[in-house]
Amino acid sequence: MMTIKRLDLGDAGVLLAGARARAAEIGVPMCIAITDEGGNLVAFERMDGGKVTSITIAIDKSFTASGAKKATHEYGEVSQPGAPVYGIASAIGGRLMVVGGGLPVVVDGDVVGGIGVSSGTPAQDRDVAQAGIDAFLAAQA
Amino acid sequence: MMTIKRLDLGDAGVLLAGARARAAEIGVPMCIAITDEGGNLVAFERMDGGKVTSITIAIDKSFTASGAKKATHEYGEVSQPGAPVYGIASAIGGRLMVVGGGLPVVVDGDVVGGIGVSSGTPAQDRDVAQAGIDAFLAAQA
Amino acid sequence: MMTIKRLDLGDAGVLLAGARARAAEIGVPMCIAITDEGGNLVAFERMDGGKVTSITIAIDKSFTASGAKKATHEYGEVSQPGAPVYGIASAIGGRLMVVGGGLPVVVDGDVVGGIGVSSGTPAQDRDVAQAGIDAFLAAQA
Amino acid sequence: MMTIKRLDLGDAGVLLAGARARAAEIGVPMCIAITDEGGNLVAFERMDGGKVTSITIAIDKSFTASGAKKATHEYGEVSQPGAPVYGIASAIGGRLMVVGGGLPVVVDGDVVGGIGVSSGTPAQDRDVAQAGIDAFLAAQA
Repeated sequence: MMTIKRLDLGDAGVLLAGARARAAEIGVPMCIAITDEGGNLVAFERMDGGKVTSITIAIDKSFTASGAKKATHEYGEVSQPGAPVYGIASAIGGRLMVVGGGLPVVVDGDVVGGIGVSSGTPAQDRDVAQAGIDAFLAAQA
Repeated sequence: MMTIKRLDLGDAGVLLAGARARAAEIGVPMCIAITDEGGNLVAFERMDGGKVTSITIAIDKSFTASGAKKATHEYGEVSQPGAPVYGIASAIGGRLMVVGGGLPVVVDGDVVGGIGVSSGTPAQDRDVAQAGIDAFLAAQA
Repeated sequence: MMTIKRLDLGDAGVLLAGARARAAEIGVPMCIAITDEGGNLVAFERMDGGKVTSITIAIDKSFTASGAKKATHEYGEVSQPGAPVYGIASAIGGRLMVVGGGLPVVVDGDVVGGIGVSSGTPAQDRDVAQAGIDAFLAAQA
Repeated sequence: MMTIKRLDLGDAGVLLAGARARAAEIGVPMCIAITDEGGNLVAFERMDGGKVTSITIAIDKSFTASGAKKATHEYGEVSQPGAPVYGIASAIGGRLMVVGGGLPVVVDGDVVGGIGVSSGTPAQDRDVAQAGIDAFLAAQA
């Protein structure tokens, strides 16, 4: 039998708030998704002006980061033509995201969930996702 | 060109809070989804203990209620065997929900979005969705 | 080798116009889809106020009617519990529609396409689809 | 509550007519799709000889352009190997189109919908989509 650490809805709220604040700061309305360590959605919000296409993309970035225990931008690097994971982007019906903006949420070395952000550039998405994680880790301390 | 009224993220927060409070009151952790009038997700939360299978069900109940401008339990009635809309439940890849718990959000006669709730019985889901709408309408007054 | 009769875009326009006029007459804004005899979409329109959920439903009613050479309400009858085609409604990923509003377009005994209508009651949808076919047949005469 | 501008079926007809005229001029029968600002289909037509595979492609180009508020050819540039959005093409079940031919429809700085064209080369598709937008903007003036 295993015991699993998993973020709860309160944690998801902290992640969302941290990401939302950063998105407001850089002036890019975002879609923000939080998944648990099983890849299942815990919370989502589309800020006013966030892109409709980014709803699924944010959820799938978070799904990928939490389920694969890997940042989506890392998949971006290893899935380039000629690289070892080339072609992975269309896996799982296209849910495996290799574009930056999905980050695993790690506590004491364990992945307890993920955050996925979409609507800006991949660099902006990743920045906003990281702000969510920073807020979460600060609240843990 | 048309001009459309649509709920924003602030409105979605009021709907979520009203539904969440009622879910806590009846002691059933729920998945709660808010969509805009185009059926696109605006906000979602899975309360701690909410069912994993209810993630999609809550989202699709809200999609149905906002997109079809009709409560999902009304579809339940008219889609019984022998009734006029029998068989509609599997439409749109199964996204068309005929189980209670999805309600359109109506302002001045216009559907501006929807709320979908899942994890309890259909009666509980509908009760919790209605509590979200009651909170929203109270905030509008 | 076979020679196939198939409605063209001009025919689709006649079907659309006939259906649209009837929808306006009964005051129900509809989604209207026209498919060819291969079940492939030729034309579609969502009247202002037509339901978002009805986009796919109208297309799939037309797909079913043209592809199966059968009105969707006929499937409704034979797919009731205990009837021979019970369970067919979820076939083809839910695309097989058994709710009224999809009609094959028949010329000289051959199915040359289909029309699918959605947003009203099944009786209204079927009435509007029939108006499209009536306009088409009148134009053929 | 938000107030949104959205193209209506009359606007869609102007977009379709402009695109159809240009497609006829260059002698390439096209699939042409119009979506609203929420990415939902408003109108579609497949000109006689338009490709069956282009039905979904045209619809998805329009969905992408309206939902992401970005021309699909712009996604083509930033999703090349080594570029920031590499791998986005398979997102949303493959609906996120990075091939030219999808353009947002912009009025006073707001995206009110999209147009997607497919059956020719991407350059032809984009040219025909632009002709639709030119006709629409001329009618607005």
